[in-house]
Amino acid sequence: MSRFKTVRGMRDFLADEAQLLRYVEDRARKVATLYGYKEIITPIVESYELLSVKAGEEVRSRMFAFKDLGDRDVALRPEFTASVARLVAASFLDQPKPFRLFCVGSVYRYDEPQRGRYREFWQSNFELMGSNRPEADAEILLLTNSLMENAGLKDFTFKIGHVGVLRGIFNQERLDDRVQNQVMQLMDKKEYDDAFKVVQDTGAPENCLRVLRQLVELKGKADSNVVDLMRACVFDYENAIVATENLRQILELISKSGCKITLNVDAGFARGLEYYTGMIFEVYIPTLSIALGGGGRYDRLIELFGGESTPAVGVAHGIDRIMMAIQQQKIPLGTEDRKSGVVIPINEQSKAEALKIAEMLREAGLAVEIEIMGRKMAKALEDANRRKMNYAVIIGERELKEGTVAIRDLARREQKTVLIEKAVETINEMTAT
Amino acid sequence: MSRFKTVRGMRDFLADEAQLLRYVEDRARKVATLYGYKEIITPIVESYELLSVKAGEEVRSRMFAFKDLGDRDVALRPEFTASVARLVAASFLDQPKPFRLFCVGSVYRYDEPQRGRYREFWQSNFELMGSNRPEADAEILLLTNSLMENAGLKDFTFKIGHVGVLRGIFNQERLDDRVQNQVMQLMDKKEYDDAFKVVQDTGAPENCLRVLRQLVELKGKADSNVVDLMRACVFDYENAIVATENLRQILELISKSGCKITLNVDAGFARGLEYYTGMIFEVYIPTLSIALGGGGRYDRLIELFGGESTPAVGVAHGIDRIMMAIQQQKIPLGTEDRKSGVVIPINEQSKAEALKIAEMLREAGLAVEIEIMGRKMAKALEDANRRKMNYAVIIGERELKEGTVAIRDLARREQKTVLIEKAVETINEMTAT
Repeated sequence: MSRFKTVRGMRDFLADEAQLLRYVEDRARKVATLYGYKEIITPIVESYELLSVKAGEEVRSRMFAFKDLGDRDVALRPEFTASVARLVAASFLDQPKPFRLFCVGSVYRYDEPQRGRYREFWQSNFELMGSNRPEADAEILLLTNSLMENAGLKDFTFKIGHVGVLRGIFNQERLDDRVQNQVMQLMDKKEYDDAFKVVQDTGAPENCLRVLRQLVELKGKADSNVVDLMRACVFDYENAIVATENLRQILELISKSGCKITLNVDAGFARGLEYYTGMIFEVYIPTLSIALGGGGRYDRLIELFGGESTPAVGVAHGIDRIMMAIQQQKIPLGTEDRKSGVVIPINEQSKAEALKIAEMLREAGLAVEIEIMGRKMAKALEDANRRKMNYAVIIGERELKEGTVAIRDLARREQKTVLIEKAVETINEMTAT
Repeated sequence: MSRFKTVRGMRDFLADEAQLLRYVEDRARKVATLYGYKEIITPIVESYELLSVKAGEEVRSRMFAFKDLGDRDVALRPEFTASVARLVAASFLDQPKPFRLFCVGSVYRYDEPQRGRYREFWQSNFELMGSNRPEADAEILLLTNSLMENAGLKDFTFKIGHVGVLRGIFNQERLDDRVQNQVMQLMDKKEYDDAFKVVQDTGAPENCLRVLRQLVELKGKADSNVVDLMRACVFDYENAIVATENLRQILELISKSGCKITLNVDAGFARGLEYYTGMIFEVYIPTLSIALGGGGRYDRLIELFGGESTPAVGVAHGIDRIMMAIQQQKIPLGTEDRKSGVVIPINEQSKAEALKIAEMLREAGLAVEIEIMGRKMAKALEDANRRKMNYAVIIGERELKEGTVAIRDLARREQKTVLIEKAVETINEMTAT
């Protein structure tokens, strides 16, 4: 047995899983193209200061942080948004808005490993920067819907809320930022009693607590009266009302667009990252308790990173989780069923010819291996059959002399000898049927 | 100005560069498919022990090493081969050989940043495990040639040598492994005088030093008499002779295969990583002093990682360097010139309709943005023109009532109003010409 293992929380993707990961990555890239998002690539190693500036305490404490050999405090990115905000603040200064940016890659958090949760995981990330309008929020929701559809998923639903509602209440009650963040994090974990206790301890009035208790119970389909109820509930809080109206506009736009997307409003919904300022959402399938993706609006982030004031809305999709969902729902990948073949040289003399013919086939777009184990023909064919290859190209003494190859259909056990220049055509005919 | 920067040695890829990187990655993946290599994905964070087991001292001292929150000694991978060897040693025990494995991603070394050299860089990596035959070495050379061709590069040449020649001499002279590695590293850096001094200090005979001095001068095209001269030079060293014969077989296979590939033999060629045991090579273009890729044979590696004895040969390609080469040689990417458009709602009422029509166009495979800045039509068209978009789809009051859209060819400044269901067809016609 090997003495070396993957580090706890890390994992390998073998061929089938790697193919599935690349499939989801491709779907995300396709959606990015269709919606006009440009791909950028940022480093995995960033300064600790950058990554911690607006991550919640929870994420901050679980970063892979260390000093590099130059004694710099660095960390592995726990998400993409800080890196994108850094880039935009530094490099996009004079460019006309909006910016539509897409990234995909691995991110790192030192969470307790469990089913579907690793310390290295994969995300696709979309940022729409420069617009504070509801149509921007709607776009991020619609493209997430589109990615789920493009990945082939069924029965997915969105949970949607608005951080501005809670923030509006907390600000009017003059809770300081630190306390607000603590309360939001407790609410994110659905630890409502603890959250309310923290609010109570600030000396907030009973009315505030009553409103909060009502809000966390308020849930309903986007086309129900849930937003009216939210508005009625927060009627003492001016900015909370503005937030519910913003949420209403976003939901109405989507509803009127006729796009089929199942939106469940959850008035007490909060998310772990501190930088959200407006609409927030997550997307789920029924059989997985973890979200496949989530995002929202964060209008002050670019400013915080030293850039000019830039409203923004974005989303991160959990590629590993989408992979799990695809496996659970048994979605066929619809990837091309590529035929495979092997070129078998019969003896030492035909080995160079085998290389030549394999190159010729590849130039015609055929995927072929070469027999390189020095096996005799019977053994080589046995191996090709075991691996369910479609055809073998056999180069023996006679063939070498005559400028021909023997092409064998492995499933039908039929073989024909053709001129080398007819090989591609013959293989294509043979594997087409 | 922003207070946040990338960490020294790290960089961002903006849209054009990111597109180029993905292009090279795609080319590598295409070559992997054509040659029958399965993609696997291994973690970026591995145990320090694993990564240092056979890396040269040079690489070892420049790893991004740290302790994770569980006090484990970990590091960011400086290359792929150790990870692949770990995986094969642990998981591929009973599977029939050969294994053809492909990986692509970022690797990390704390080198001094300079033009074309970053601390995070990108590689594609091919491993062929299970065969000790020259046709396996030839395959790795040919697929590297194929990748360079597929990327569109011109005038690239291979430098090829054989570690077995030097190892054969050193073993017969009973130099210990540590000294051998030190000498190879000095030779890799072309610090021959220092290398010979180390050999001399072991008390090696004058004949050995004479042979080494001759070897480092021996260079020539693969089809010259350079291998004969190598063989003559090392005639006192049994295993060095075996190595030259192995090199001859590899070169002859490639030559007889008729594949056009420029191979320059360099008898004194060594590579920095300690694990090579046989043929080694690098690939260059004339205008770049750094190699675009390199690899070789390492027959004892899997064993060292606790797996069963498995001869292997592999190659890593420097994606960043291939990108530089493509830029220098001004290679057109040949990627699809996708038409772009923008959907412009004229007023509040047409915004939801804009979302709907954009979704319809995307479902037909068209890449469209939506105007989300609330700009008036003239401004929105100006922005679309500035960005060299191909068409605009305008949804005004009249259109909304009549179920039509106005489609504007931005280059020709022509516009026509069509029924919504004719929009895709009209855009395709307009942008086809």
